[in-house]
Amino acid sequence: MFTDEYFMKMAFQEAEIAFEKDEVPIGCVVVSNNRVIARAHNLTETLNDVTAHAEMQAITSAANYLGGKYLINCTLYVTLEPCVMCSGALSWSQISKVVIGARDEQRGFINKNLSLHPKTEIVTGIMENECSSIVKEFFKSKR
Amino acid sequence: MFTDEYFMKMAFQEAEIAFEKDEVPIGCVVVSNNRVIARAHNLTETLNDVTAHAEMQAITSAANYLGGKYLINCTLYVTLEPCVMCSGALSWSQISKVVIGARDEQRGFINKNLSLHPKTEIVTGIMENECSSIVKEFFKSKR
Repeated sequence: MFTDEYFMKMAFQEAEIAFEKDEVPIGCVVVSNNRVIARAHNLTETLNDVTAHAEMQAITSAANYLGGKYLINCTLYVTLEPCVMCSGALSWSQISKVVIGARDEQRGFINKNLSLHPKTEIVTGIMENECSSIVKEFFKSKR
Repeated sequence: MFTDEYFMKMAFQEAEIAFEKDEVPIGCVVVSNNRVIARAHNLTETLNDVTAHAEMQAITSAANYLGGKYLINCTLYVTLEPCVMCSGALSWSQISKVVIGARDEQRGFINKNLSLHPKTEIVTGIMENECSSIVKEFFKSKR
């Protein structure tokens, strides 16, 4: 039951909420022991803040829940590959696993030759088509 | 009067406040038209939040002051070279100028071959010795 697809669907629901708010539709959840301890979606427009990416909010929120700044035994599910900023934050957090929906060849951290913490396992390509399509659809609607 | 040293001294004062709080002593200010519109110091321990670097807080605070997410015509003065996370945030902010006290060869963005926004001017080496010494002194006291 608690598959990567199961939790990525929840991250995708967060992306859909962002879309409805006219935000770039990216969502994520943080899971600890099969329990969702944080969920967030991009809010850069609403908050007028370039740092308000889904991952940044989820990291802060999860650390707050855990009462410690390191996200040990936690997995972050995010619909789009994290950017440089978010990959840096994930590195500092020492999170155990990051599951990525769609790749972001241009803005994502992987093609910048950045890595996360050595302890962090990375999985890509979960619900890739849906996670990619919602972002494309959003930008098409903006043209 | 309004030299880079003038504003770096204010950033350094923020680093000193961090030191007193037992936080890694890094401070910064954001300046717009020779006016300080944000000041911050590292608060990762106090807030239990790896994202609470001085620069991240200052970016959010400056955008809040300006009422817009882009830090156009702003300069950020920071005592230590920004890390990957903070360089990513500064890129998104399109800030006009970043003035760095001391380099951080290991954790800083420059040696990771990252760049800021193409519009952003970068200056390094302002109050380099003081900005470097306070961090070294902090970690020496921790051993």
